[in-house]
Amino acid sequence: MEQDFVVGVDIGGQTTKIGMVDRKGTVISEPRIIRSDKHTDEFLFFDELSEAIDKLAAETNTAGKIKGVGIGAPNGNYYDGTIVHAPNLTWGGRKTIKVAEILSEKLGLPVTLTNDANAAAVGEMTYGSAIGMKNFIMITLGTGVGSGIVINGQVVYGHDGFAGELGHTTAVRYNGRLCNCGRIGCLEAYASAIGLARTAREFVEANVDRDEFNQRSPLREISEPVTSKEVYLAALQGDGLAKKVFDYTGRKLGESLADFVAFSAPQAIILFGGLAKAGDFIIKPAEQAMNEQMLSIWKDKVPLILSILPESDAAILGASALAW
Amino acid sequence: MEQDFVVGVDIGGQTTKIGMVDRKGTVISEPRIIRSDKHTDEFLFFDELSEAIDKLAAETNTAGKIKGVGIGAPNGNYYDGTIVHAPNLTWGGRKTIKVAEILSEKLGLPVTLTNDANAAAVGEMTYGSAIGMKNFIMITLGTGVGSGIVINGQVVYGHDGFAGELGHTTAVRYNGRLCNCGRIGCLEAYASAIGLARTAREFVEANVDRDEFNQRSPLREISEPVTSKEVYLAALQGDGLAKKVFDYTGRKLGESLADFVAFSAPQAIILFGGLAKAGDFIIKPAEQAMNEQMLSIWKDKVPLILSILPESDAAILGASALAW
Repeated sequence: MEQDFVVGVDIGGQTTKIGMVDRKGTVISEPRIIRSDKHTDEFLFFDELSEAIDKLAAETNTAGKIKGVGIGAPNGNYYDGTIVHAPNLTWGGRKTIKVAEILSEKLGLPVTLTNDANAAAVGEMTYGSAIGMKNFIMITLGTGVGSGIVINGQVVYGHDGFAGELGHTTAVRYNGRLCNCGRIGCLEAYASAIGLARTAREFVEANVDRDEFNQRSPLREISEPVTSKEVYLAALQGDGLAKKVFDYTGRKLGESLADFVAFSAPQAIILFGGLAKAGDFIIKPAEQAMNEQMLSIWKDKVPLILSILPESDAAILGASALAW
Repeated sequence: MEQDFVVGVDIGGQTTKIGMVDRKGTVISEPRIIRSDKHTDEFLFFDELSEAIDKLAAETNTAGKIKGVGIGAPNGNYYDGTIVHAPNLTWGGRKTIKVAEILSEKLGLPVTLTNDANAAAVGEMTYGSAIGMKNFIMITLGTGVGSGIVINGQVVYGHDGFAGELGHTTAVRYNGRLCNCGRIGCLEAYASAIGLARTAREFVEANVDRDEFNQRSPLREISEPVTSKEVYLAALQGDGLAKKVFDYTGRKLGESLADFVAFSAPQAIILFGGLAKAGDFIIKPAEQAMNEQMLSIWKDKVPLILSILPESDAAILGASALAW
């Protein structure tokens, strides 16, 4: 029988989404969602996950036609199919979990795993903005900043399987913000949704530009804690302070992107995730800073492109693409 | 007839070195040296170069047994064998020079070209410290800072052939030094021989640690301009200020290396060039800063290794290795 389907699994801290995907990259039925954080024992979680996959196969009449399962997960290691020390997973901290081995045995299917940003890069290459590109960098701007680097048509996994942690390169070397990872000044502490909200709080507290704009800023009226979405809505309403927050965030991102280009000279950089949806508010300052900071050989030659994958399905599609 | 030899050509700003190399990586006779800077017309330079190669082949009795010519050159592009806008070459500025095409026609041999740091990486992989390594980063610490990145056993050239310009990633984001390239705060402005000498001048002028060391520093007695070699000799004599200069330089290097590791997760980083010969004076602070700055998954796992290739032959060997 032809194996015309793959299962995409997106393991997040709170929920895990499971979709059945056909060769064209269509998620053929409503994805199933299970809680990731119900258990502290990984085996109980994988019992539930394999049950959910079996049910999905039965419902979609795809049992026996499935080529394999692709998983995107935090701290996922492509080489050995493990999740290593994932503090955001209730069953993941301080352990190495043999995800591919456990699940493959339960399902009788090949299981491939990588981290979520690498899965997103594979998704872009297979179904999205990067079709036909051999060299690009995928940046996911969500709660954190993730990255997947593609060189010569292949995701860069490095010596140990953990390459591509661009969110944890240094955006601000001195007096930088403390990142969740324990380092100082990580890009993630500035260009994530959490980083943007923090910048907004700092700008409001510092009364930046109160005189310059001489106007009521909706941003100032928001009660703590400010969220990245509120900053976006304020910017949409023309709030100059909210735009400054995006400018600052975009510039920090662009300065780092310039350094990434010096590394792998990509054809394009593809942006995905909640912050990327702010569009020009963040893209324009990022592009400007990037072009100011690059060697002349690259100026105005490396476009910032938005992902065209629907956000609801992108993580599933990316993970599923691993299984082809 | 067996093709048991390759020609390695190292084009530098002042001189060009040409060596005949056998399969074991031995430069089989004294390299020939011609001036690079005698001409402003590239065709006259390539006339001389091809003549020198022919003579070397005749002298070493290798004519007819040569597999090809490998060239390492500033701003060399592997994809199309050109040198693009090389300001340090008297015949190279603001032009694209079809080196491989011109020389291949003259010699009747295949010619492969890349930039000098990429050639060094190929040399390490073929004959040096990186034999058997699939993922490593080569850093050349000379007048400038060059780099060659190897991923999955292949040099990273990127979309356009110019990947791996790690000397022009940002080491100091604010109030950084102006680099020769026009950018601000490049690693090259700190971790090169010129950067080190500049740090020495700045430290002497600022009277850093005069009290702390309460001693005559040989470094202070050197008349301008201080060279990197003089700093090294002072450090060898126990000059605390000279050691501080190396500490500062090594830390800047190590901080940047930590970011490079987050990119490609290499098995090791290999250092080559004049400054690398300062050994522990620069390696120790670099290692320390790198390990402080990396995510915990990499701490103490990515060694800094010195090249084992003899400096006199390394550039020729690296270039020659391209031709196999």
